[in-house]
Amino acid sequence: MKPIQVGLLGAGVVGTGTFVVLQRNQEEIRRRAGREIRISHIADLDTERASALAAGAAEVTADARSVIARPEIDVVVELIGGTGVARSLVLEAIAAGKHVVTANKALLAIHGTEIFAAAREKGVVVAFEAAVAGGIPIIKALREGLTANRIEWIAGIINGTTNFILSEMRARGIDFAQALAEAQRLGYAEADPSFDIEGIDAAHKATLVSAIAFGVPVQFAKAYVEGITQLQSADIAYAEQLGYRIKLLAITKRRDAIEGRSAGAIELRVHPTLVPAKRLIANVEGAMNAVLVQGDAVGTTLYYGKGAGAEPTASAVIADLVDLARLATADPDHRVPHLAFQPAAMQDLSVLPIDEVVTSFYLRLQVADVAGVLARLTGILAEHGISIDAMLQRPAEIGAHEGAARTDVIILTHDTVEGRMTKAMAAMQALPTVLARIVRIRKEDLG
Amino acid sequence: MKPIQVGLLGAGVVGTGTFVVLQRNQEEIRRRAGREIRISHIADLDTERASALAAGAAEVTADARSVIARPEIDVVVELIGGTGVARSLVLEAIAAGKHVVTANKALLAIHGTEIFAAAREKGVVVAFEAAVAGGIPIIKALREGLTANRIEWIAGIINGTTNFILSEMRARGIDFAQALAEAQRLGYAEADPSFDIEGIDAAHKATLVSAIAFGVPVQFAKAYVEGITQLQSADIAYAEQLGYRIKLLAITKRRDAIEGRSAGAIELRVHPTLVPAKRLIANVEGAMNAVLVQGDAVGTTLYYGKGAGAEPTASAVIADLVDLARLATADPDHRVPHLAFQPAAMQDLSVLPIDEVVTSFYLRLQVADVAGVLARLTGILAEHGISIDAMLQRPAEIGAHEGAARTDVIILTHDTVEGRMTKAMAAMQALPTVLARIVRIRKEDLG
Repeated sequence: MKPIQVGLLGAGVVGTGTFVVLQRNQEEIRRRAGREIRISHIADLDTERASALAAGAAEVTADARSVIARPEIDVVVELIGGTGVARSLVLEAIAAGKHVVTANKALLAIHGTEIFAAAREKGVVVAFEAAVAGGIPIIKALREGLTANRIEWIAGIINGTTNFILSEMRARGIDFAQALAEAQRLGYAEADPSFDIEGIDAAHKATLVSAIAFGVPVQFAKAYVEGITQLQSADIAYAEQLGYRIKLLAITKRRDAIEGRSAGAIELRVHPTLVPAKRLIANVEGAMNAVLVQGDAVGTTLYYGKGAGAEPTASAVIADLVDLARLATADPDHRVPHLAFQPAAMQDLSVLPIDEVVTSFYLRLQVADVAGVLARLTGILAEHGISIDAMLQRPAEIGAHEGAARTDVIILTHDTVEGRMTKAMAAMQALPTVLARIVRIRKEDLG
Repeated sequence: MKPIQVGLLGAGVVGTGTFVVLQRNQEEIRRRAGREIRISHIADLDTERASALAAGAAEVTADARSVIARPEIDVVVELIGGTGVARSLVLEAIAAGKHVVTANKALLAIHGTEIFAAAREKGVVVAFEAAVAGGIPIIKALREGLTANRIEWIAGIINGTTNFILSEMRARGIDFAQALAEAQRLGYAEADPSFDIEGIDAAHKATLVSAIAFGVPVQFAKAYVEGITQLQSADIAYAEQLGYRIKLLAITKRRDAIEGRSAGAIELRVHPTLVPAKRLIANVEGAMNAVLVQGDAVGTTLYYGKGAGAEPTASAVIADLVDLARLATADPDHRVPHLAFQPAAMQDLSVLPIDEVVTSFYLRLQVADVAGVLARLTGILAEHGISIDAMLQRPAEIGAHEGAARTDVIILTHDTVEGRMTKAMAAMQALPTVLARIVRIRKEDLG
C-alpha cells in the first residue's frame, strides 16, 4: 500500500522526537499500520536545524504554507505551538483537505470550536492525542475506551512542571521559589514558566478533557484557574500531618439537577488540591502525569505516564498517524468523532462559576494565642452552615520569630458551596485575632 | 441511522451488566456512537432469568444458534465463557458473517489463531477488550494508543481474585487458606477457584496481551504458569521488611539477540513476584487490576481499574460495540487489526522456556543454626555465578516450636538465568544443614 505522506510543521523538541521515533520504529509501525508513514516535508524557520534532522530523508523549507499546499501530503502535523500562526496553518491545512495531527492544547482549548467545525465541513480528521498528558493515551481512553459510561468526573495531574515542583517542595521541605529554580535548572520548567505554574497549561488540557468527557464545546474562558505560586511549604507539611498530599489537579465534574439548571452543569477547574495520601494519584511524583476517570459502569480507572518530553509526546502524535493510516477508507460520517460525541449530539452545559462549586476545604489561620479565638472561628463556620471534619493547632512557624504569641489553626471542612466559604472567610479575616491572610486550599476525596 | 442489532449469548453476570448498562446509558451511548446499539435477542439456557432481564425489550431463546442465524443481527456478543460451546458458536457467528464481541480470554488464548483466521477470511471483527482487565481499556491502549512504540515489556496484575487474596494476607497477616475463604465469602473467588489461584486465568490474559504487544501468535501452551497456592505469609512479611510487596504478575517481555535466536524471543510467564514497595503497581490493593507497559518512546505507562464484575466488564463489551457502530463502513483491510499487527506482519518469535528467563530472586532457606552454614550457601551461589544483592537472617518462625535451633536465611540475588538458579538450589537443598524445602520467588524491579 502506498505510504501516508506527512508534512511536519515545526522541528523543535516534539517535531524532532516524532521524526526520530518514526524512523527508528519504521518497521514496527508499518507492521501495525499496514503501510509506511513517511515525513516527506519539514517546515521550520530554522532550516539548518531541520536539515540536520532530515538528513536528506525529507525536503526542508522555511515556508509552512508550501508544505500544506503540496498535493502529495495526506496529513499535516502541527508542532509549532501557540495560537497565532499555528491557528492559520491548521485552518489552511483543513481548507486544503488535509488531515491534521496536533499537540497544541492552547490552540484547541481556545479555537477548537472553529477548528473542529472547519474539519467537519471538509471531512478531515483533527487528532490531538498528544495535546493532553503526552504519551498516555487518555484521549483515546475517553473517546473510545469508556464510551459505555456516563462519565462522572475526571481529576488529573496533567502538568509535569508543577508536579515536579510540588514533589520537590514536599520531599525536601523547600519553598516554591527554590523548587522552581531547581525545575528550571533540570529543564522541567521553562525560562518563563508562567503558563505552567499559573495553571494555564493544565486548564487548556482540562478544557479538552471536559469536552470529550461530557460532549460539551471547548470553553477555556469559563475555566477556573489557580496555579501554585502562592503555595507555602508550611501547608504542604500540615497537609502531610493530616494524611494528605497537595497536588495541582485539573478537575471536571458533572453536576446534575442543580437548582435553576434543568440540564445540569459541569465544573471545570484547576487549583492546588489536598488529596488523601493513600490514593494512587497522591503518589504520582516528579514530572509524571496521571488522570483519574470515574465512570458509572467502569468505576474508577487511572492512566499514568510521562506527560511531556520529545519521545513520549511523539508516541501520541504517531498513534494518531497510525489511526489515520489504518482507517483511511472510513467515510467521514463513520469515524470516531473529534470530540467523542457526534456533532449533532453536543450539549451546551454551562460551566459552574467557582462560587457554586462544592468541595471541602483546608484552611490555615494564623491567630493570636488568646482565649476564645477557636470559639469565634468555629462559630463563624457554623453560622455559615459549614461543618468541620478535623482541626489541628500548632505553634506558628511563620512569624513566630516576630515575638507575638501566634498559633496556626488548621481546619478541614466537610463539603460546602464555595461561595459560602468565601463569606465565612471574610468574616473570619475581619477578626482582630486573625493575624495573617487566611490560607484556603480545596480538598477532594477522589473516593 | 438504523440501530446496530446485537444478539447476546449468555445472560449471566456480565451479560446482565451489558444489557443493563446499554439500557441505562442508551442516550449517552447513542450520542457517542451516532446510532442506537440494541440487544434485540438474548440466548440463555435459563430462559426464565433471561426473560426477567429482557423484560420484553428483547426476544429470549434457549437456542443460541437461532440468534446467530437471524439476518437482522449485526453483532454477536459471546458471554458464555469456556472453550467448548463458546468456540462453536463464535465460529458459527463468524461463518454467518457476524461481527463478534467476546470477554472470553480462555477461548482466544487457546483457539485465537483459528478464530482470528476465520474472522479475517469473512471480513468480520472479533473484538475482545473485555477479555483482559475488565473495564480498563488496555487492549485499545496497546493496539492503538501505543502503536509508535517498540514495546519492551508488560507486567500486570490482571487477576483480581489473587490480588485480593495477597492483599488480605499482607494486611492481616493471615495465611493463604484463610484469605481464600474470605475471598469466597465476599464473592471475589468462585467455589472452584483453581483457574484464578493457579494463575491460569492470568496466563490466558497474558497470552493475549503478549500477542498484541509483539505481533506474535497466541500461544498459551508455551506460557509458564505458577499460582499463589504455595505462597506463605512468612515470605510476604520478609518481603515487606526488605521493601517489597509480593504480587501475582503476568509478565511478557521482548528478549533480543539471545544466542542461537537471531530473531529474538519473548518471555511469557505468570508467577508470584517481589516488586519494590515504592512502585505504584505494588500499591494496587484488593481486587483491582493494573497493567504496566514499557515502550521505547513513551517510557512507562500504567493503566488501573476494576478487572472484573458485571458493569466494569460490560463497559469494555460496549466500548467494542461502539467501535463497531462508529466504524461500520470501514472496509476490512482498513480496520484496526485484531491482534494489533497486520496479519502478514506477524512474527513467530519463540517463547523462552522458564529456564532461560533472566530475573532476580528471593530465596528463603530454613537452616540449622550452626557455624559455616552461610559460608556454604554463599559459596554455592558464587560457584554458579549468582551474585547476592541483600541478605537477612531471622530466627525461624516456622518450625521453631519443634525445638531445633533453626534460622531463616533470606537472600535477594541479582539477575541470573533461572536454569542456573535451579542448579544452585538443588546443590543447596542437598546440604544436611538446609532443613526445609527452599522457597524461591522471582523478583522484578520494573524500573
